[in-house]
Amino acid sequence: MRIGIIGGSGYTGVELLRLLSVRDDIEIVFISSRAQAGTRVDALFPSLRGHVDLLFSDPDDVTDASCDLVFYATPNGTAMNQAPALLDKGTRVVDLSADFRLKDIAVWERWYGMTHTCPEWVEKAVYGLPEMYREEIASAQLVANPGCYPTAVQLGFLPLVEAGLVDTGSLIADVKSGITGAGRGASVPNLLAEASDSFKAYGVSGHRHLPEIEQGLANMTAENVSLTFTPHLLPIIRGIHATLYARLNQDVDLQKLFEARFADEPFVDVMPAGAHPETRSVRGTNMCRLAVHQPQGRGTAVVLAVEDNLVKGAAGQAIQNMNLMLGLPETKGLLQPALMP
Amino acid sequence: MRIGIIGGSGYTGVELLRLLSVRDDIEIVFISSRAQAGTRVDALFPSLRGHVDLLFSDPDDVTDASCDLVFYATPNGTAMNQAPALLDKGTRVVDLSADFRLKDIAVWERWYGMTHTCPEWVEKAVYGLPEMYREEIASAQLVANPGCYPTAVQLGFLPLVEAGLVDTGSLIADVKSGITGAGRGASVPNLLAEASDSFKAYGVSGHRHLPEIEQGLANMTAENVSLTFTPHLLPIIRGIHATLYARLNQDVDLQKLFEARFADEPFVDVMPAGAHPETRSVRGTNMCRLAVHQPQGRGTAVVLAVEDNLVKGAAGQAIQNMNLMLGLPETKGLLQPALMP
Amino acid sequence: MRIGIIGGSGYTGVELLRLLSVRDDIEIVFISSRAQAGTRVDALFPSLRGHVDLLFSDPDDVTDASCDLVFYATPNGTAMNQAPALLDKGTRVVDLSADFRLKDIAVWERWYGMTHTCPEWVEKAVYGLPEMYREEIASAQLVANPGCYPTAVQLGFLPLVEAGLVDTGSLIADVKSGITGAGRGASVPNLLAEASDSFKAYGVSGHRHLPEIEQGLANMTAENVSLTFTPHLLPIIRGIHATLYARLNQDVDLQKLFEARFADEPFVDVMPAGAHPETRSVRGTNMCRLAVHQPQGRGTAVVLAVEDNLVKGAAGQAIQNMNLMLGLPETKGLLQPALMP
Amino acid sequence: MRIGIIGGSGYTGVELLRLLSVRDDIEIVFISSRAQAGTRVDALFPSLRGHVDLLFSDPDDVTDASCDLVFYATPNGTAMNQAPALLDKGTRVVDLSADFRLKDIAVWERWYGMTHTCPEWVEKAVYGLPEMYREEIASAQLVANPGCYPTAVQLGFLPLVEAGLVDTGSLIADVKSGITGAGRGASVPNLLAEASDSFKAYGVSGHRHLPEIEQGLANMTAENVSLTFTPHLLPIIRGIHATLYARLNQDVDLQKLFEARFADEPFVDVMPAGAHPETRSVRGTNMCRLAVHQPQGRGTAVVLAVEDNLVKGAAGQAIQNMNLMLGLPETKGLLQPALMP
Repeated sequence: MRIGIIGGSGYTGVELLRLLSVRDDIEIVFISSRAQAGTRVDALFPSLRGHVDLLFSDPDDVTDASCDLVFYATPNGTAMNQAPALLDKGTRVVDLSADFRLKDIAVWERWYGMTHTCPEWVEKAVYGLPEMYREEIASAQLVANPGCYPTAVQLGFLPLVEAGLVDTGSLIADVKSGITGAGRGASVPNLLAEASDSFKAYGVSGHRHLPEIEQGLANMTAENVSLTFTPHLLPIIRGIHATLYARLNQDVDLQKLFEARFADEPFVDVMPAGAHPETRSVRGTNMCRLAVHQPQGRGTAVVLAVEDNLVKGAAGQAIQNMNLMLGLPETKGLLQPALMP
Repeated sequence: MRIGIIGGSGYTGVELLRLLSVRDDIEIVFISSRAQAGTRVDALFPSLRGHVDLLFSDPDDVTDASCDLVFYATPNGTAMNQAPALLDKGTRVVDLSADFRLKDIAVWERWYGMTHTCPEWVEKAVYGLPEMYREEIASAQLVANPGCYPTAVQLGFLPLVEAGLVDTGSLIADVKSGITGAGRGASVPNLLAEASDSFKAYGVSGHRHLPEIEQGLANMTAENVSLTFTPHLLPIIRGIHATLYARLNQDVDLQKLFEARFADEPFVDVMPAGAHPETRSVRGTNMCRLAVHQPQGRGTAVVLAVEDNLVKGAAGQAIQNMNLMLGLPETKGLLQPALMP
Repeated sequence: MRIGIIGGSGYTGVELLRLLSVRDDIEIVFISSRAQAGTRVDALFPSLRGHVDLLFSDPDDVTDASCDLVFYATPNGTAMNQAPALLDKGTRVVDLSADFRLKDIAVWERWYGMTHTCPEWVEKAVYGLPEMYREEIASAQLVANPGCYPTAVQLGFLPLVEAGLVDTGSLIADVKSGITGAGRGASVPNLLAEASDSFKAYGVSGHRHLPEIEQGLANMTAENVSLTFTPHLLPIIRGIHATLYARLNQDVDLQKLFEARFADEPFVDVMPAGAHPETRSVRGTNMCRLAVHQPQGRGTAVVLAVEDNLVKGAAGQAIQNMNLMLGLPETKGLLQPALMP
Repeated sequence: MRIGIIGGSGYTGVELLRLLSVRDDIEIVFISSRAQAGTRVDALFPSLRGHVDLLFSDPDDVTDASCDLVFYATPNGTAMNQAPALLDKGTRVVDLSADFRLKDIAVWERWYGMTHTCPEWVEKAVYGLPEMYREEIASAQLVANPGCYPTAVQLGFLPLVEAGLVDTGSLIADVKSGITGAGRGASVPNLLAEASDSFKAYGVSGHRHLPEIEQGLANMTAENVSLTFTPHLLPIIRGIHATLYARLNQDVDLQKLFEARFADEPFVDVMPAGAHPETRSVRGTNMCRLAVHQPQGRGTAVVLAVEDNLVKGAAGQAIQNMNLMLGLPETKGLLQPALMP
C-alpha cells in the first residue's frame, strides 16, 4: 500500500513514521513539511536513522502521488482547504486535525475561530473511533481522527452512557495530559525550565475538545448531555490520564459492565477491580487501559482511563483507522508492549 | 524560644529545620530520630551544612528538654502514645501526624487500623487550620496539624460551603500530589525509575484524608456533606493541585466571594479571574494560591488550589501554628518568595 | 526455540520479556523469581498484559526445562553457583550478571567481595561484545554479557585504541547513567523525591566496571592501559551517555576512522561530524550511537557515545548474543526505531 | 540603597528579584524589559505576588534613576552600548552578561561574533569572582559577573592550579548544566517534550565559556594553560555539576589543600573526603560545594563541584559582588539553606 503524510515535522508526523516504517506492507511515498522541505527526515529525528530514507518534500510539490491513503498531520484549518482536491480524485484520507470532527459547522466555527471552507466533506466524514463506528470507518473515504482527550473520555464514559446508567446532565472529566499534546512548536510555557517539576490546569473556562466530546457522548444516548471538562498539563512526555465522574441512577456491577462492553475490543483493556492504571503502562502503544471504581459504595462512578496521547490519542488510532479502511487486519503494526520502565 | 522536634529524619523534619534554622528567635534544642540517632543532621541532609550543628538524638533520651514547644513529625500512632507525658508537664505540642485530627475515635480507628490510646487529648486538641480556627489555636496546648490534601481541599471549598452556595451532598475533589507526600521511606513504586514520566490515581476506593476533609467541611455548614475524593501521584517533588467541583444552587459572583473571604488571610492568595495557578508558584512557601471558575457559565463551580505539600501542607503550617501559639507574628519566617523557576 | 529466564522480576528481566514476547520464533518456557513466585508476570508489569501469559516460577522448581538457552538476570553471585549444573547438561547460557566477565579471579574477588565458586567456567566463558568477539560468541556455550557502562565505553574507545592512536595510559571516561542502571530494589537515594531535579557523581574512588573496561581495552592493544572512570547518576529512566577523552599521538581523520571501523556493525551508528547524540535517540533500542570530536583542533579526542542501558547495555545485547549463539539473524527482533519523543 | 535592574524578564532578572525583594536595606527602583514594558512583574512571575509591586519599565525611559548600583541582566552586546553612559555619571554597575569578561578584545570578538564598542571599560572592569578578586571588586565601578560554567570550573581548579600541583596543559572539564542556563527564550530543543528524560553534550567543538575559563586559570599560574571543555545539558531546572580532571605532578594531601584554600570562603564548602555533592544540595543558594578525589591512588585528581547556575552562577554572585561594592556584609541576603528535597 502506498501512503503519504502531509505535515510531517510535528509529533504526530514522526509517530506515524515510527509505527509505519517497520511495516513491509506499507510504502511511505512522501512526507511533506513546508518548514523542513529539503531536510532529511532523520536529520530532524535521529531516532529514524536507518529506518526512513526520505527528505521532507514541499507540500506544493505533492500534487499526485497516487497514494492509497494520505494522512493529514497538519494544523487545524489546512486539511479543509487541501484535502478536498485529493478526495475528489478518490484518494482516501485520514485527517488527524480537527477540521472534520464536528458535525455542527457553527459550533466548529465558534470554537476554532475560522470560517469552515468545506462543510460538504464534514457531512461525509466518519468520526474515527473504531469502538463506536468500526463499520462506517471501513467504508469511509474520509475519516476524522478523534482528538487525544476525546478518545480517552469517550471510551471511559461509553459503557455508562450507552447503558443509560448515569445522569448525563452532570458529567465531569478531570483530564491530565503529557506535554507532547501541546505540539512541537517553540513556546515559553512548554520549556522544561517552566513546565517540569510543576503542574497546572489550563483552559478551564473552555477547551476545543469540549464540543467534540459532548457530540460523541450525545451519540450514545437520547438524554441531554452536559460535561464539565478540565484539562491539566502533566510534566511528562506522553500519556493522558482521564478521571471521570458520573452519578449512578441505579445499582449495577460496574466491573462486569465494562468487561462485557469491551470484551472484543483489541485496544481497550479493562483492568481488574480495584486497579489504578498508570500512563507508562501504555507508553508507545495503541492501548487504552481502564479501571472503574465506586468509592465508598456511594452513588458516584469513577472511571480511570489512560492512553498514549500520540498513539491511541493520535497516530496509532489513525493507523488503526487506516488498517480498517484498507482491509488490513485492524491490529497490524500496533501490538508492541509498552516501553516500561 | 526553645523548640524540640521528635522524628526528624523524614521530609517534614528536614523542612521544619530549613524554615526554623534561619530564625534568631528560635533555638532548636533537639531533633530526635530512632533510626539516625548519633548521626549528624547535616550528614543526612547536606543542604543544612553550616545551618544546623546538631546530631540526631535517640527519642528515649529526650525526657525533659524544657522546651516551649515540641513538634511531632512521627508516623501515625507515635504521638498519641508519647505526647501525653509532655502535655501533662505543660509543654505545648504541634502534632504533624494524624493522631489527633479526627474527633470521632471510632472513625479514626477504622481508617488507621489501630486502637486509639489517648481519646482525652483528641477532645482537647485544636485542628490547626488557622483560616478556620485561628483563635482556638492561639490558646491551644495541643494542635493537630492538618494533612496536606485536607488543607488544600478545605481552603478551596471554604467560601462556597460556608456561604451555603453549593450542594454539599455531591462534592468532588480531584487532587494531585507531588511524591514527597509519600514520605522518605524506601519503596519500589516511588523510585524515579517507576514514578517519573508517568501518572496514576491511587486509593480511589478510600483514602485516610477523606474523613478528615469531610469532618472539616461539616464544620462549615449545617447541611449534610458527602465528598468523592480521588488522589493522584504527580511525578514532581513538591506541590499539591486540587481541582474541586461543586454544583451551585444560586447565582453568585464567585470571584468577589473568594476575594472577600480571604482578604485578610496572609497565606491564601486569590488569583485574578481566569487564572490557573501552578504548583511551582508556591514551591518552598507557605502560600495556598486559589482560582475559581464557572466553566461555560453552567451550574458547576471549579476551584483550583495549589500549595507546597511540605510547607502549607505540613511544616510551614505547623510553624504558622507555632507562631500563633507562642504569641509571635503569625507570618514570621514564612514570607520568602517561591523558588521559581 | 525454547528459552528460559532465571531472575525475571528486575528491569533486565522485564526487558527481555518486552523484546522476546513479540517474536514467533521464540517460546518463553519459564521465568523465575524467588520473591515473586506464583505471581502473574503481567500483575507485576501491566505493560505485558496480553503479551505474556505466565506466572513467575520458583527458581528451585526449574530443574530441567529442556531449554535451548537460558538467561541469567540474577544478582551477582547467583549464576556462578547455579549455571554450571545447566551448562554441564549442555544448555547454553547468557549470564547478564558480572559472574563470568573478569578473567582474573583475584581481581573479581577483590571488586565483588566474594569467593568465586566456578573459575573453570570463567575460563570457558566468552565476553559478549559482538563488535569484538562475534565469532567466539556464535560457538560459545556460556556468554558473559557485558555491563552497561563497559559496553558504551569500550565501543567508544575501540577505534582509537585498536589503531594505536592514543595514549592508553591516561584515558578518561566521564559517564552518566539513567537510574534503571541501579536496579529495581527499594532504596532511598533512588526515590523520585531524592534523585529527580538533581545530579551527582558516585563511586568516584572505585566502581566495579573499571576492571571490566580495563580488561576489555587491554584486549585491543599491546600497550599499558589506565583509565579514570567517573560514573554519574542521571535523573532519567533509561540511557547512558559516555564522554570519553584520549590524547592523540598522531594526526588522523577521526570521522573516517570511526565510520570505517563500524561500517558493517548493525548496532553501532557513527553520526555525522559535529553531531551530539542524545540518549533519547536510542530509547528502547539496541543501538549505540557515536560521535567523535577534536575540540579546537588540539590534541585531545572526545568521543560521545549513547546507548539504552537496558537494551544494548543489557537485555538487547543479551538477545543479540542469543541470536548469534542459536544461528538466528543477529538483528532479529532488535530493529525497532527508538521511542522519541 | 537604590538598585535598578536592566533586562528583567529573563531568569537572572527574576532571580535578582527573588533574592533582593525580601531585603529591607535594598529598594528596587526600577526593573526594565523592552518586551514586557507595562506588564506587572508579578503577572509574568506569580511567585512574586505580594513581594514585588512594580511594572516592567521601558529601558528607554530609564534615563536617570539616581541608583547606587545597576544590574545588567541583558543579552550579550547590550551592556557594552548602554552601560558606559551610566558609568560616566558615576553609577556602579554589575554586568551579568559577557560584555566585559574577556580582557583580550580580539578573542571576545571572535567568540561573540560582534565588534566590541567599549574596550576602555573592559580594561577598567573587574572580574567578579570574589574568591580571586575580592579586594578589587570592593572598589570597582564596573564588575563583570562571571559565567555560570566558569564559576564552577575556576573554583574547582583553583587550589590545584594556584599551587602548581597539576599539568595545566591538559586540563579537562566535563560539565553538566540544568536547562535554565539556556535562558527563557522559546526554543524547540529546550521544550520539556524534547529535553526531559534525555541527556546530550553540546558545543563540544567550542563554547564561549572556554576562553573565559582559560583566562581565569591563566591568572592563577605562570604556566601555559590548555583546557578541554565539554558542556552537557541536564534535564533539571537548576544546577551545574563540574567534573574536573587534572594530572598531578607530585604527591599531596588534596583534602587538606582544598580545605585550607577555602577555609575563610563563605560560599565555598569543601565536603568531607569521599563525598559526592549533589546539585540539589545547593538549589536556590549561593554556595559552591566541592569534593576532591584521587581515584585508585593514581596520578589524576578528580574534582566535583556543584552550584546553582542561577545563584552562585549568576544572580547570587552578582549580589555578593553588589554587597562588596556597597560596603555591605558580603553574605547579606545569601544565607538561606537549599530547598531540598
